[in-house]
Amino acid sequence: MTPGILHVVGVGPGDPELMTLKAARVVAASPVVAFFRKRGRPGHARSIAAAHVGPRAEELAFEYPFTTEVDVRDPRYLTDMGEFYEATARALAARLDAGQDVALLCEGDPFFYGSAMYLFDRLGPDHRTEIVPGITGMSGCWTRARLPMTHGDDVLAVLPGTMDEDALAARLDACDAAVIMKLGRNLPKVRAAVERAGLTARAMYVERGTMDDEVVRPLAEVTADRVPYFALVLIPGRRGPR
Amino acid sequence: MTPGILHVVGVGPGDPELMTLKAARVVAASPVVAFFRKRGRPGHARSIAAAHVGPRAEELAFEYPFTTEVDVRDPRYLTDMGEFYEATARALAARLDAGQDVALLCEGDPFFYGSAMYLFDRLGPDHRTEIVPGITGMSGCWTRARLPMTHGDDVLAVLPGTMDEDALAARLDACDAAVIMKLGRNLPKVRAAVERAGLTARAMYVERGTMDDEVVRPLAEVTADRVPYFALVLIPGRRGPR
Repeated sequence: MTPGILHVVGVGPGDPELMTLKAARVVAASPVVAFFRKRGRPGHARSIAAAHVGPRAEELAFEYPFTTEVDVRDPRYLTDMGEFYEATARALAARLDAGQDVALLCEGDPFFYGSAMYLFDRLGPDHRTEIVPGITGMSGCWTRARLPMTHGDDVLAVLPGTMDEDALAARLDACDAAVIMKLGRNLPKVRAAVERAGLTARAMYVERGTMDDEVVRPLAEVTADRVPYFALVLIPGRRGPR
Repeated sequence: MTPGILHVVGVGPGDPELMTLKAARVVAASPVVAFFRKRGRPGHARSIAAAHVGPRAEELAFEYPFTTEVDVRDPRYLTDMGEFYEATARALAARLDAGQDVALLCEGDPFFYGSAMYLFDRLGPDHRTEIVPGITGMSGCWTRARLPMTHGDDVLAVLPGTMDEDALAARLDACDAAVIMKLGRNLPKVRAAVERAGLTARAMYVERGTMDDEVVRPLAEVTADRVPYFALVLIPGRRGPR
């Protein structure tokens, strides 16, 4: 029997119409459609791809072991997530070894901060794998904020909001354009770092860009101390030659 | 008369199937399809979108004033490109003011180092504009190189190969993952900076990722001193929690 192919499919930032033609085709042709979700939720990637999942497809929902934001430096996180990915890889391998193709759905782009990379790492060596890139969440956000991000020879930095304030401020000083990800409870620290770098006037806050309930506003107007984990701060680059 | 809408449409990294469903729909519905090209060439964005351009669409090809790589710091570049974008904006504005919608095609993502930003800057204030994001060239390249780029709390830097060697080496030291763009004649300098940062063993070279004639190989095996301008070097990040 020919083993199945694991298609790791980026479904983009949220608007279902921002899936690629290839992603739509691969999902529609897959006898098995797998996705991650939080416990008790439909699964965001699954919702984005809903129109393309075949009526007879087997669906595999993998539920993250945490329902709230846990620091990646917490030893619990490492252990529990490792076990979670191992179990997920075994479930996928069973379908592949039985000759079934699997589409593993992934928000944004699979190789850009995607959970699916941990399965690619595990299954890639012994299984056939194909990757379908997707529009990143940050691209969806800067599009909706109407912010041309990088011109000419701008340097772009993509920074996690989990960095400490000094490191964040130093990295902001050393680039032209920046995306700060993983805001969550890090927002007050991020706000302070952006202010120290003198960038508050250029900084935009975007939550759920391209989705129906998106929020786009200047960072200076966001007064909450805690925001969704996947919200972003965008700092567009200098103007290049006009 | 209702003025037309300027749709700035990202068509992705090269594989026509990596256009989004939205890009395909917007291009197919546009009575005017505009694109940039080098003199005497069909236009890369136009080629990617070919299957979706309507048979009765008016096509506007805007030819860059340069046929070879000119340094952005060259005063000639600033003047000639400025005049070129002004003329292009006037041509597009004429269609919009006549009530026609226009799709302006853009390789990759329009707001990520895209020429179309210079037209958005000029036309945005007085015309209706809508942006369709696209898969970036770098995403197409890391997908084809099968390189998961950023895990967990990795910092990603996107650097132009035009930077001097010291600056490049310093930025490479300060990030976990990096994309170095605009190689062209900058390759020997980029190679030296990557070597100084101790990253040669992790560095991949990708040319025309997702296109039929793509090239993917370790940077260490690329011996040419000059390569295509849009080739990239990719340095994947550290492993996050596995």
